[in-house]
Amino acid sequence: MSVGAGVGRLASGPHPTLFRLLYEPALEHDLEVVLPQLLDVDAAHVVMAVTRGLLPAEVGASLLSVNRELAQAIAAGKQPLAVPDIHRGMYFLYEGEYIRRLGPQVGGSAHVARSRNDINATIFRMRARSAVIELLERLHGFTAALSAFARRHAGTLVCGFTHLQPAQPTTVGHVFSGVLGELTRTADWLAQAYPPLNRSPMGAAAGLGTSFPIDPHQVASLLGFDAPIDNSIDAVGSRDSSVHVLAPLALLGTTLSRWALDVQLWASAAYGFLDFGDDLVSTSSIMPQKRNAFVLENIRGQAVRATGALMTTLMGLKNTPFTNSVEVSGEAASHLWAGAAASVQALELATLLASQLIMRPQEATRFLEGKDTTMTALADALVSQLGLSFRTAHEVVGTLVARAPRGGVGEEALRSILPSLLSVPLTGAQLDRLVPVLSPAGAVQAAAWGGGPSPAAVEGQLDRLDARRRARQEMVDGWKASLARARERLSGAVSETMAGSAPRGENRETTR
Amino acid sequence: MSVGAGVGRLASGPHPTLFRLLYEPALEHDLEVVLPQLLDVDAAHVVMAVTRGLLPAEVGASLLSVNRELAQAIAAGKQPLAVPDIHRGMYFLYEGEYIRRLGPQVGGSAHVARSRNDINATIFRMRARSAVIELLERLHGFTAALSAFARRHAGTLVCGFTHLQPAQPTTVGHVFSGVLGELTRTADWLAQAYPPLNRSPMGAAAGLGTSFPIDPHQVASLLGFDAPIDNSIDAVGSRDSSVHVLAPLALLGTTLSRWALDVQLWASAAYGFLDFGDDLVSTSSIMPQKRNAFVLENIRGQAVRATGALMTTLMGLKNTPFTNSVEVSGEAASHLWAGAAASVQALELATLLASQLIMRPQEATRFLEGKDTTMTALADALVSQLGLSFRTAHEVVGTLVARAPRGGVGEEALRSILPSLLSVPLTGAQLDRLVPVLSPAGAVQAAAWGGGPSPAAVEGQLDRLDARRRARQEMVDGWKASLARARERLSGAVSETMAGSAPRGENRETTR
Amino acid sequence: MSVGAGVGRLASGPHPTLFRLLYEPALEHDLEVVLPQLLDVDAAHVVMAVTRGLLPAEVGASLLSVNRELAQAIAAGKQPLAVPDIHRGMYFLYEGEYIRRLGPQVGGSAHVARSRNDINATIFRMRARSAVIELLERLHGFTAALSAFARRHAGTLVCGFTHLQPAQPTTVGHVFSGVLGELTRTADWLAQAYPPLNRSPMGAAAGLGTSFPIDPHQVASLLGFDAPIDNSIDAVGSRDSSVHVLAPLALLGTTLSRWALDVQLWASAAYGFLDFGDDLVSTSSIMPQKRNAFVLENIRGQAVRATGALMTTLMGLKNTPFTNSVEVSGEAASHLWAGAAASVQALELATLLASQLIMRPQEATRFLEGKDTTMTALADALVSQLGLSFRTAHEVVGTLVARAPRGGVGEEALRSILPSLLSVPLTGAQLDRLVPVLSPAGAVQAAAWGGGPSPAAVEGQLDRLDARRRARQEMVDGWKASLARARERLSGAVSETMAGSAPRGENRETTR
Amino acid sequence: MSVGAGVGRLASGPHPTLFRLLYEPALEHDLEVVLPQLLDVDAAHVVMAVTRGLLPAEVGASLLSVNRELAQAIAAGKQPLAVPDIHRGMYFLYEGEYIRRLGPQVGGSAHVARSRNDINATIFRMRARSAVIELLERLHGFTAALSAFARRHAGTLVCGFTHLQPAQPTTVGHVFSGVLGELTRTADWLAQAYPPLNRSPMGAAAGLGTSFPIDPHQVASLLGFDAPIDNSIDAVGSRDSSVHVLAPLALLGTTLSRWALDVQLWASAAYGFLDFGDDLVSTSSIMPQKRNAFVLENIRGQAVRATGALMTTLMGLKNTPFTNSVEVSGEAASHLWAGAAASVQALELATLLASQLIMRPQEATRFLEGKDTTMTALADALVSQLGLSFRTAHEVVGTLVARAPRGGVGEEALRSILPSLLSVPLTGAQLDRLVPVLSPAGAVQAAAWGGGPSPAAVEGQLDRLDARRRARQEMVDGWKASLARARERLSGAVSETMAGSAPRGENRETTR
Repeated sequence: MSVGAGVGRLASGPHPTLFRLLYEPALEHDLEVVLPQLLDVDAAHVVMAVTRGLLPAEVGASLLSVNRELAQAIAAGKQPLAVPDIHRGMYFLYEGEYIRRLGPQVGGSAHVARSRNDINATIFRMRARSAVIELLERLHGFTAALSAFARRHAGTLVCGFTHLQPAQPTTVGHVFSGVLGELTRTADWLAQAYPPLNRSPMGAAAGLGTSFPIDPHQVASLLGFDAPIDNSIDAVGSRDSSVHVLAPLALLGTTLSRWALDVQLWASAAYGFLDFGDDLVSTSSIMPQKRNAFVLENIRGQAVRATGALMTTLMGLKNTPFTNSVEVSGEAASHLWAGAAASVQALELATLLASQLIMRPQEATRFLEGKDTTMTALADALVSQLGLSFRTAHEVVGTLVARAPRGGVGEEALRSILPSLLSVPLTGAQLDRLVPVLSPAGAVQAAAWGGGPSPAAVEGQLDRLDARRRARQEMVDGWKASLARARERLSGAVSETMAGSAPRGENRETTR
Repeated sequence: MSVGAGVGRLASGPHPTLFRLLYEPALEHDLEVVLPQLLDVDAAHVVMAVTRGLLPAEVGASLLSVNRELAQAIAAGKQPLAVPDIHRGMYFLYEGEYIRRLGPQVGGSAHVARSRNDINATIFRMRARSAVIELLERLHGFTAALSAFARRHAGTLVCGFTHLQPAQPTTVGHVFSGVLGELTRTADWLAQAYPPLNRSPMGAAAGLGTSFPIDPHQVASLLGFDAPIDNSIDAVGSRDSSVHVLAPLALLGTTLSRWALDVQLWASAAYGFLDFGDDLVSTSSIMPQKRNAFVLENIRGQAVRATGALMTTLMGLKNTPFTNSVEVSGEAASHLWAGAAASVQALELATLLASQLIMRPQEATRFLEGKDTTMTALADALVSQLGLSFRTAHEVVGTLVARAPRGGVGEEALRSILPSLLSVPLTGAQLDRLVPVLSPAGAVQAAAWGGGPSPAAVEGQLDRLDARRRARQEMVDGWKASLARARERLSGAVSETMAGSAPRGENRETTR
Repeated sequence: MSVGAGVGRLASGPHPTLFRLLYEPALEHDLEVVLPQLLDVDAAHVVMAVTRGLLPAEVGASLLSVNRELAQAIAAGKQPLAVPDIHRGMYFLYEGEYIRRLGPQVGGSAHVARSRNDINATIFRMRARSAVIELLERLHGFTAALSAFARRHAGTLVCGFTHLQPAQPTTVGHVFSGVLGELTRTADWLAQAYPPLNRSPMGAAAGLGTSFPIDPHQVASLLGFDAPIDNSIDAVGSRDSSVHVLAPLALLGTTLSRWALDVQLWASAAYGFLDFGDDLVSTSSIMPQKRNAFVLENIRGQAVRATGALMTTLMGLKNTPFTNSVEVSGEAASHLWAGAAASVQALELATLLASQLIMRPQEATRFLEGKDTTMTALADALVSQLGLSFRTAHEVVGTLVARAPRGGVGEEALRSILPSLLSVPLTGAQLDRLVPVLSPAGAVQAAAWGGGPSPAAVEGQLDRLDARRRARQEMVDGWKASLARARERLSGAVSETMAGSAPRGENRETTR
Repeated sequence: MSVGAGVGRLASGPHPTLFRLLYEPALEHDLEVVLPQLLDVDAAHVVMAVTRGLLPAEVGASLLSVNRELAQAIAAGKQPLAVPDIHRGMYFLYEGEYIRRLGPQVGGSAHVARSRNDINATIFRMRARSAVIELLERLHGFTAALSAFARRHAGTLVCGFTHLQPAQPTTVGHVFSGVLGELTRTADWLAQAYPPLNRSPMGAAAGLGTSFPIDPHQVASLLGFDAPIDNSIDAVGSRDSSVHVLAPLALLGTTLSRWALDVQLWASAAYGFLDFGDDLVSTSSIMPQKRNAFVLENIRGQAVRATGALMTTLMGLKNTPFTNSVEVSGEAASHLWAGAAASVQALELATLLASQLIMRPQEATRFLEGKDTTMTALADALVSQLGLSFRTAHEVVGTLVARAPRGGVGEEALRSILPSLLSVPLTGAQLDRLVPVLSPAGAVQAAAWGGGPSPAAVEGQLDRLDARRRARQEMVDGWKASLARARERLSGAVSETMAGSAPRGENRETTR
């Protein structure tokens, strides 16, 4: 077979335009990203083929020795394949290398009971599981940094907002603990993508299985997969894993965008609660006074990319036949990588900022002055201390706010206006007990119920969040260990097969 | 409080334009969809408030008697609230009804330690968990129908395609079993949305918790939630559940679109493998011969709507403060309902078709003639019977195809051309053994490995898929039973509280 | 033909499930929204058919008299069609009504040289052009209100921001003039959708034209279209108009979201530049002090819906055959209406707010204090007055800011620190000339170049924007007048045809 | 200024992590893509500054001589900037180069009355207008190839489909002319993006204009823009051009996907109307018979990417302040390039295929046999020849189809069955005249009305489409010529300024 010319029934090589547009630009990427995985897949397949008697032991040994040489060349930084002026993509170059070295009878023998279709699906999953592991670890890095900051500021007062308006006093730790709640669920969701992803398509061949008595379980095990995929069309035709991964990333992007907006507001001149060191801000080329926390804008910009990747994937899958196709395996599935890379970028930037945030507690406390953030606490006190119904208390306090001088309800307004708003007389002692309710610090301490910001409650929340993160990281560590063991198994099996000591195929019964 | 006029510090009612655009059109929907849930939430909250001593027992009893009357009115098909000419939305009308009936001191007392924010978040989750249950049951209905059809046709030959071109012979059961593999993972994914969704926001109040010693666990239990949410900002500020549900629906939409395209192709004149009864097709108003399986186009059209809802939700969440806001709770979260409804529609239509599909086995078999779908089997045989390497065998067969007469490689072409393509002589006996390999039926029987289409393998696949569906439905049944038990608990607790027999609040320690 | 039973070659009516899911729920909508347009299309077609001799004059007169009766019934608020228990959608009910009244020979004669396909495409365009007109007028309403506000505040100082940090002083008029620039281009873009939309598909029939010598130009003219569509497959298979309209709406949504975020920030407690009356804000059910400008969140929430509709349309179109299909004409095209309605909603809300905004100039001016927003002006002065290079001046002023006391660079810091930062001595007179540069008001007056905020420049910008809006509204008025004239033409032609005075078909040659 | 260290008020360089994540990876791209444009922008600005007296003539000459040296270095393939180990991005490196060569007083003087904000906005527009030009020319290439094929096959019979079922006979030219209709509108739409795009932001500086008496018209003219942008906030804060370009590309993507699906169906084994040479198909690594037109799947996969880019852009713009920000200018705007590149790729591939399509007229004609595609023609004949109403004729033919033997309505069925379906007797002569109506070829000739497929009609359609393409290409040629003239103007002005012969700034009045 001359790869530069035709393949099989095709009399000619690819059209030069096609080569320029598709094969040529893909090669560099494939050599770097795909070839290392292909070598592993090939090795596992050959080991299995020898074990099952599909290939003679000596043929398998020859193939594996070339496989190992190629792997060593890559490890040494070399590009090991001969690349003619025109070709039909990396896979045929790869197979051609075996044929060049071992002749057609041996070199062309590995492609039994397999196809580029199942190989591509397998490599996709190998790359995707690595991506999930990296993403989870990056997300753990961010949530750990955010949790540490929240813990340091579990008692640091800050204004709580709704609709961008002052609502009730809270703490920095409480606000970030809320964000961490959503991030924790997102991490759980992302982790759920791993088990269905970690199944091996090998054996599906072109999508219709094979009549050779292969052992897909052995291949799966040598490649670190939990099991083969049950149905060969599903194995090559589905790429739902891409959606399983991108959807949590898209959600993560929205959470990061919300957190980054809050942080940018808090760090802006109008609030001043947070600050960054000079090494994390930029100035303007024209405005000398500027310190711009522009990284928060990069975070938001990177964070939405997973949504775009998700949308493009879903649209790419729409109305495609449920079988192998370039539209699905080559095009739609490819958006995963850009979405994952942008999410990693956003997480790295967010982790950097979260670990370097400078809190300005005095500014945060000062902001609470005159903002009437304890009016709910006051209404609550009218209920608990005076027995008003909450709605009546709310009306009374609403009127008090409306009548108080600009600058908010202080002790003086309370004492002078409140009594006139009640239908029953208010004793001096009752008024005295109401005054401390105006204190934001007191309100925070009291808000110990319903997931509120009292420091003790927040610490409990953070304890539980941290425990979930640690448990999840242990799970990720388990996956990594399992992959490492598989690599050892594969390496050992290759060595044994090269030494001729692998068990000769006993053709034991397997069902798929 | 006059709801038509101002509320609290607001001196006036809503601007007439605002009323026309927002409050007025929302009311009908809220009365129908939200009010029934609100009554339950209110009842659970009042029961808890009495239990915890936040409301006097007799006040609680009065409130609950109105609550029950309103519920009974709704059950009788009546709209129970007075609606003035202008108002600020359903909630204030609802609370106004209590005040109208019980006076402000009692009627206005229920809104202690709570807010519309946590109530809205709670009702969202109650509606969403019902939607998840319905969606899973609809999906189970479809997969059951598809599995039954696949099982009936586990041995029915059909052409397998890749890139829309004939690939290898397979069976109808095998093709649909592949689709069912993806649908099964999607159902698992959707089911994973339920546990994080089934947590109660009540107690979070406006998002900053409360100083009243409430028991959020009791409220959660009375409403069928597994537990309260840990952090009050998270409770009112997050709507990630919407994304958790819509993402599997978006994926489901792509699978349905792929399946529906395949079915429409199979049912089209060029293939003719499938057919539908007259009651499932339409004709044309102008072309008398027409029988259009247009429902498959409705399925695809409905199926993409969940993707639109998902994207709109994600965009709606982007760059919003992480706290309560109308943009998140009122706007972004609302896309869930349209996405769920369209998915239900697509599933109902797909179930109808799947249960009524008419197979045309003769057409399907005839299509295989002359399509060279057993050329892989032939190459495999050259490997296993003659010892060629696969790549050599592939080249040989490719050349054979190229040289065979139009109409495909038959026995004659095999006997006359193949020998000339081999470098070694071929005996008559060897040729005789190759001829049966050309049979699609034989190829399907042989493709028993790697998840292939051999009927026995397909039946095993379907057994496992059915078992997973049944187990999942049992889980859904468990959720439904749990919700039913909670309704009974709530009803009993209301009765007891109305009877004054509820345990008077012991202020036991709860942590959030 | 019994519409409840089969149609043509179909022996049976629709499956009950199909009827419940598709035909039944669509009917109410179709009767209200589609039927009035259908009557016009039908009338124009019959007039043409008589003119061209395709229908006898008396047949045409009979058909048109029923047409007019149905139209009058609708105008009187009646639903004029008989609806059996089961049917195949509104069109067959409509045609059935003619047959019921006039018998099959006359009543069934109108459907010559036409199909539901071209009729549906035509009605889609009639509805869409009305939507474009309404959208443009709503957008003009908003931009007029915003421009009026900007003009009133062309000289009102406000802090200009970049990255949410104070940048340079500007005016409210300048900021909103900037937003109006983008809105103006969007309005132009939306208006560009009208001409390609306003072409008539009638005559395309099912998509393959007709052998009857019709006159599509006459039908187009009677329905207010500029011309027929050139190719019949294009006429029924394309719905690109939907994308032409939704894309500008999606863009508009992002602009509205950006404007609404800025306004909400300006109206929030941390800034306080803007305010709203009590009738445009809400309070909280629990926080009595609250005045929430929540409408801005509704605007943003509604504004993103057009993006969702656009994406769903594009995904709906993907991989559909280029011909008539339900997936395109019934499903994908339908997203236009929801996107348009949400955009109208967002525009109405935005117009309301823009016309009611309350400016707080003192707050806006006070915010500028101590924010160092004139440091660029100072650096500019060092260039123009002292001859420094800008980069040097920027460095000097940057260092000045860094060394100035908290609270910004005032006159004292300028006089005490600046001299030490320059390599040449600074005279007192030079220093005196630099002091006024620190004034934001002066900086705004000076920023008269490059589209800056000097009031005279802003008024010029607003003049040009207003002129473009008025010219565009004149164009819209022209479209409306043209449609009104067409309605008169149609009404006249119907009357003439009913009176038998229409020109008997001369079969003049037309090419399409 | 040491770029590696702080800038202005910033005491330190960027954090190493920030440098690794943002500045370092951006540099390579910026040097290649941005720097050449920056040199032009800088040159135009300096020429203007000298003309307007903002810079001394000799300073301008020095700056321009460096500018020219840098441009010459790039033209010679050299990277002309010194890059330290750590830096804050390309712009500061660029300015640093001037300072290094000319000293701070001269080298740092160019940045007067400008900012990175307006420079970035300007370069974005320069790149975007080039992209629009390339995209239009690629689109013209594709439509020209498709039109040529359509013209060659204006009379080639093919089955017309709706809902994937045979509808009526048509021609290949007619089908592709329909697609060309939509492509033509899309090209018009894309071209409309150019005029609003081709306006210069220079002069807006950081977004608030400048107090220096600049001449933005001169800069605009030297850079080939039609005019400056009116408002400085709009100039730096808007990136709507990105949406203006991506929306037509997204629409184009759907059209390409629809065309590519149709072509793939026509080229598949079930139809066989079209074919490709061996150099445009691939085979399978396992299935030797395979000839896969996989490029059509690449086209569809590439074509949806513009929709993803559009979605990501819109989401990226959502809820950003309307001013300069990295989120808008750096992140959201950047998706344009990926969307444009994928569209170019899809167009190039589509052009290649369209110019190489092989028609199989015999297969296309044979497919029409027995498909009853002339039943509409038959019903039409019953109307025109026998005076039946169309609905009656439709019913009659529908029944005829239902009663005809499998294989369709032929002459025999017509003669034997039709008479029994009519209420009036049918003469032999009448029957004789109906028989030819069954011929697809005749039906196509007759379908000359309503944009139908008669070859003469199709040629007229193609003539008009070709004329519009040529006119649009002339417009594009006009843009290109205008840009070329601007380049000459700029080059001449630079030379004159370097020679000191530029008119010394007369400070003429300009308003923005």
